Amino acid sequence: MATIGFIGLGNMGGPMAANLAAKGFRVRAFDLVEAARQRAQEAGCEVVGDPREAVAEAEFAITMLPSGPIVRDLWIERDLLSAVPAGCLVIDCSTVAPEDSRALARAATERGLAFLDAPVSGGVAAAAAGTLAFMCGGEAADVERARPVLLAMGSRVFHAGGHGAGAAAKLCNNLLLAIHMIGTAEALQLGVDNGLDPKVLSEIMRASSGNNWSLEKYNPYPGVMEGVPAARGYQGGFAVDLMLKDLNLALDAARERGSAVPMGALARNLYALHRGADPERGRRDFSSILELFRRSAKSL
Amino acid sequence: MATIGFIGLGNMGGPMAANLAAKGFRVRAFDLVEAARQRAQEAGCEVVGDPREAVAEAEFAITMLPSGPIVRDLWIERDLLSAVPAGCLVIDCSTVAPEDSRALARAATERGLAFLDAPVSGGVAAAAAGTLAFMCGGEAADVERARPVLLAMGSRVFHAGGHGAGAAAKLCNNLLLAIHMIGTAEALQLGVDNGLDPKVLSEIMRASSGNNWSLEKYNPYPGVMEGVPAARGYQGGFAVDLMLKDLNLALDAARERGSAVPMGALARNLYALHRGADPERGRRDFSSILELFRRSAKSL
Amino acid sequence: MATIGFIGLGNMGGPMAANLAAKGFRVRAFDLVEAARQRAQEAGCEVVGDPREAVAEAEFAITMLPSGPIVRDLWIERDLLSAVPAGCLVIDCSTVAPEDSRALARAATERGLAFLDAPVSGGVAAAAAGTLAFMCGGEAADVERARPVLLAMGSRVFHAGGHGAGAAAKLCNNLLLAIHMIGTAEALQLGVDNGLDPKVLSEIMRASSGNNWSLEKYNPYPGVMEGVPAARGYQGGFAVDLMLKDLNLALDAARERGSAVPMGALARNLYALHRGADPERGRRDFSSILELFRRSAKSL
Amino acid sequence: MATIGFIGLGNMGGPMAANLAAKGFRVRAFDLVEAARQRAQEAGCEVVGDPREAVAEAEFAITMLPSGPIVRDLWIERDLLSAVPAGCLVIDCSTVAPEDSRALARAATERGLAFLDAPVSGGVAAAAAGTLAFMCGGEAADVERARPVLLAMGSRVFHAGGHGAGAAAKLCNNLLLAIHMIGTAEALQLGVDNGLDPKVLSEIMRASSGNNWSLEKYNPYPGVMEGVPAARGYQGGFAVDLMLKDLNLALDAARERGSAVPMGALARNLYALHRGADPERGRRDFSSILELFRRSAKSL
Repeated sequence: MATIGFIGLGNMGGPMAANLAAKGFRVRAFDLVEAARQRAQEAGCEVVGDPREAVAEAEFAITMLPSGPIVRDLWIERDLLSAVPAGCLVIDCSTVAPEDSRALARAATERGLAFLDAPVSGGVAAAAAGTLAFMCGGEAADVERARPVLLAMGSRVFHAGGHGAGAAAKLCNNLLLAIHMIGTAEALQLGVDNGLDPKVLSEIMRASSGNNWSLEKYNPYPGVMEGVPAARGYQGGFAVDLMLKDLNLALDAARERGSAVPMGALARNLYALHRGADPERGRRDFSSILELFRRSAKSL
Repeated sequence: MATIGFIGLGNMGGPMAANLAAKGFRVRAFDLVEAARQRAQEAGCEVVGDPREAVAEAEFAITMLPSGPIVRDLWIERDLLSAVPAGCLVIDCSTVAPEDSRALARAATERGLAFLDAPVSGGVAAAAAGTLAFMCGGEAADVERARPVLLAMGSRVFHAGGHGAGAAAKLCNNLLLAIHMIGTAEALQLGVDNGLDPKVLSEIMRASSGNNWSLEKYNPYPGVMEGVPAARGYQGGFAVDLMLKDLNLALDAARERGSAVPMGALARNLYALHRGADPERGRRDFSSILELFRRSAKSL
Repeated sequence: MATIGFIGLGNMGGPMAANLAAKGFRVRAFDLVEAARQRAQEAGCEVVGDPREAVAEAEFAITMLPSGPIVRDLWIERDLLSAVPAGCLVIDCSTVAPEDSRALARAATERGLAFLDAPVSGGVAAAAAGTLAFMCGGEAADVERARPVLLAMGSRVFHAGGHGAGAAAKLCNNLLLAIHMIGTAEALQLGVDNGLDPKVLSEIMRASSGNNWSLEKYNPYPGVMEGVPAARGYQGGFAVDLMLKDLNLALDAARERGSAVPMGALARNLYALHRGADPERGRRDFSSILELFRRSAKSL
Repeated sequence: MATIGFIGLGNMGGPMAANLAAKGFRVRAFDLVEAARQRAQEAGCEVVGDPREAVAEAEFAITMLPSGPIVRDLWIERDLLSAVPAGCLVIDCSTVAPEDSRALARAATERGLAFLDAPVSGGVAAAAAGTLAFMCGGEAADVERARPVLLAMGSRVFHAGGHGAGAAAKLCNNLLLAIHMIGTAEALQLGVDNGLDPKVLSEIMRASSGNNWSLEKYNPYPGVMEGVPAARGYQGGFAVDLMLKDLNLALDAARERGSAVPMGALARNLYALHRGADPERGRRDFSSILELFRRSAKSL
C-alpha cells in the first residue's frame, strides 16, 4: 500500500488520517498539537516531528488545515513543496478560496509536481464514518490516481473541473447550504408563529417542494429530530464561525467575478447578527440560526 | 360512491375533478369558462349551470379557485354555504391566507357545516397524475372522512392542525421553496462564473449538503435536467406570478404575527425585480429566476 | 373663525387640536379616552360626547386615528359621513394605506362631500410646536381651502396629487426614513468596529455624501447628539412598533403595484428581528435599531 | 511655497494637482498616461519622467491612484518610499482598505517618514472646484502640517483618527451613500408606481424626514433636478464600477471585524445585478440604479 504524508490532524484531519491507517496505508502524520499527534499514533499513524518529515517519502501528500493563508504559507512560503519527492501527488483537502488552490497548483507545477484541490463535504461525522464526499479540482488522471486514497476516507469522489474547481464547488455548496438552513429556520418559525407544530410542518415540507438537506438531515428546530445538534443545545456539528468563514470565501469568489449573490450575502449577515460579539455563539452549530428567529417571535 | 360538488376547473381543478370522476365518484362540476366545462364533461363529470346546482346534492363540496377573496366571495358574500345540504363536508383546496380559511370555517360552523382547508402541493403535473399532497386544516375526524376523496386526487394527506393550518403550511412550504430555488440559481451561476460546469456542480451539490428539491427535481439551469421548465424555455410549470402571489400571502402571515422573514422578503423582491413590467415574464416558470443572475454575470 | 370637528386626541391629535383652539378656531373635539378629552378641554376645545356631535356643525371635520381600518370603520361602517353638514371638508390626517384614503374619498364623494387625505410628518414634537408638514391628496381647491386650518397646526402644506396621494407620499417618506436610519446605524457601528469615534465619524459623514436626516437630526448612536432619543435610552420619539406599522403599509403599497422594494423589505425585517417578542422594544424609539448592530459587534 | 510630488493625474488627481499649482505650490507631477501629463503641464505642473523623480525634492508626496494594491505596489514593492527625502510627509488620497493604509503607515514609519491616509469626498466636480473634503488618518500634528496643502484642493479637512481611520471613514460614508441612493430610488419609484409625480414627491421628502444627500444633491429620477447625472442619461459622475469597488472594500472592513452590514451587503448585490455583464452600465453614474427599479415597475 502507498505511503501517505498527512498534515493537519484536527476534528476533520484526525479521523481522516485514522481511516487511511485503518485501511492499511502507511500514514506519516504531523500536527502542531501534541494531543492530536497522540490520537493519530493510537489510530495507527507514524507520527513525525515536522511537516517535511511527513511528506519526505510520500506518494500522496495531504493537507487538511484551517484556512487558505495557512495552506499557502506551509506549501509555498515555507516551501514544503521542496520536501516532496518526485512523482508525489499533492492533495489539499482544506476549504480555501479557488485562487488559493490555483496558486498552489501553479507552485506545484513549477516544481514538476501534480496537485489536486479536494475539499470535503459531510462534516465531522462523515469524517469519522469514512463517508466524506470529495470535490476535486485538477487533471482527470490525477483524480483517478487519488481515488483509492480518497475512497479510504470517503464514499464519493467528484471531479469538479480544473485546478480550483474543487474549492469553488465546495463554496457554492456551502453558500446554498447556508441559504436553505436559514430558509428552513424562517419557514419553521413562521409556521410555529401561526400555530403549527414544527414536527408536523417539518414532515409536510419534507414530503413537499420545500424539502432540502437541512430539513431532511439536520432539522434546526429543537424537538423535531433526534441525533442532530438541535437536539443537544446546538453543541457539536458545524460551527457558526466555520460557516461564516465559508460564506466569506464564497462572497469573495462572487466579488472576483462580479456575480450577484443577494441571498448568500444576506445569509452571511444574518449569521453575523446571530453570532454577534459572543464567541460562545460562534462555536455552536450553524443550525442555531433558528434562535435568531425564535427570539424575535411575538408568540414567545 | 359519494357525490361531489366541484367548483373551479382550471389548470389544477380540471384534472382534479377528472381524477375523481375516473375513480367512480359522481362529480357535479362548475366553472365560469365554457372550455373548462367542456373538458370536465369529456372527463366524465356532470357539468351544471351554476355553483349552487353543483353543491346541491353534495356529500363533499370542493372549491379550487384563484384567490382567497374569490373563495370568500363565493362561499360567504354570495352565500353558497346556504345551498349545501346538511352533513356535507366543505373543502377548499385553493391557496389562500390562513385568515381566509378561518373565516370560511367560522361561516361554515355557523351553519352547522364541517369545513377543511386543504391546499395542495405538487403543481399541474401532480394534479394530472393524481399524486398531489394535501395539507389539511380542521378537525381530525373530518380529515379522515375526506381522506378517500383526497386520495382519489393525490397520494398523501397531511393533517397540519386546526382550521387555517393547512393554508399556513402551504405558505411556509412555498416560502421555503422560493428561497431554495433562488439560492440554487445563485449558487449555480456563481459556480459557472467561476468556471464550473453547471451539470457537474449540480451533481456534486445533489450528493452534498446543498441538496434541495429545486436541485433534485427542478434544476433551473438550462441543459442540466430534462423534462423540467428550464429545458423548454421556462414554459409551463409554476408561474412567476403565482409564486409572487404565494410569497405575498406568506409575508402577510409573517406580518400578522410579527415574524421576521428576511430571506423570504428578499425572495419576493427578487421575483418582483425579475418579473418587472413584463407580463410575459410573469407567466414563465418560477425557475426562470436563474435568468436574473445570468443576465448579471460578467462572464456573459 | 371656522368651526372644526376633531376626532382622535392622542399623542398627535391632542396637540393638533390644542393648536387649532389656540389660534382661535372653534374646536368641537372627541376621543374615547377620558384623559385625552380632559386635556383637550383644558386646551380650549369644546369636548363633546360622541363623534357625530363633534362634526355636526363643522366646516372642517378632521380625524387623527391609529389605523386605516379604524378610520374606515368610523366614517363608512358607522356612517359618520351622514352626520357631516353639507359643504363641510372632511380631512383625514391618520397614516393609512392609499386605498383606504381612496375608499374614504369615494364614500365622501357619493354624499357630495369633499375629502382630503392629509397625513403629517414631524412627530410628536412638531405636533406640539405646530410645525408639522402636511402631505395632501385631493383637489387643489380643497387643499387651498384647508390651508389656513392646516397651517394652524403646521408650517408646510404640500399637494401631493389626487386622493390617496398624501397617504402614498407619507409611506414613501417613511420607507426611505427607515432605510437611511438603518444604514446610518450600520455605517456608524462599522466605523466603531474599525476604531473610529462615532462622534467624529458622524461629523465627517454629515459634511459628506453620506449625509441624511437620521444623521443630521436624529443620530442613533448614544453620546453623539443631545436632545435625541439615543441620548435618553431611546425613550420617547417615534416607536419601533409605529415604524413597523408604516413599513407594512409601504410594503402593501409596493405589492399592490408590483413594485420591487428590496431595501425597504429588508428594513421591515430588521425591525422585526430587533423588536422580537419584546413589547418594551416595540415602544422604544426607532433609532434603537443601532442596538441590533451593536449587540453583534465583535468588539463589544 | 512648498514643493509637492504628485503621482496619479486621472479624473480626480488631475484637477487636484492643477489646483495646487494654481495656488502657487511647486508641483512635480507624474502619470503613466501621456494625455494626463499633457493636461498637468498646461495646468502649471512640472511634469517629470517617473515617480521617483516626482517625489525626489518633495516636502509633501501625494498619491491619487485607482486601488490599494496599486498604491502598495508603488510605495512598498517598488520602494518609492526610498526616493522620498527625509522630512517629507507622504499622503495617500486614494480610496483603499484601512489595512492598506496601515501597511503604508508601517512601511513609512520604518523609514522614518510621516504618513497620512487622506481619501476624499466630493467627486470629480469638487476636485475641479477645489471643494473636496479630506478624511485624514494619522498623527494630529501631521494633519495640521498637511492642512494648507489639502485646503488648496478642498474646503474641509477632518481628522478621523489614527492611521487607517481616514480610509475607514471614507468606506463608511460610501456604504451609507449607496444605501440612501438605492433607498431614494426605491422610494421614488414606489411613489411613481402609486401615481405620484417624482418631482412633487422629491420636494415633499426633501422637506421631511426622508431627506438625504441623494435626494438633495443628486436626485436619481430623470426630470427632477438639473445638472445631475440623471439629467444627462447618467453620463459622468461617480461610476457604478467605482461604487462597487468601494462597497467591496467596505464589506471587507465589515468582515475583518465581524460587523453585520445587511443593508450594505444588499446594496452591493443590487449594484451587481444592475451592472451585470454590461461594462457600459458599469461606467454610468451610480444614480442609474433607479433604472433597476424602473425596469421592474408594472406601470411601465
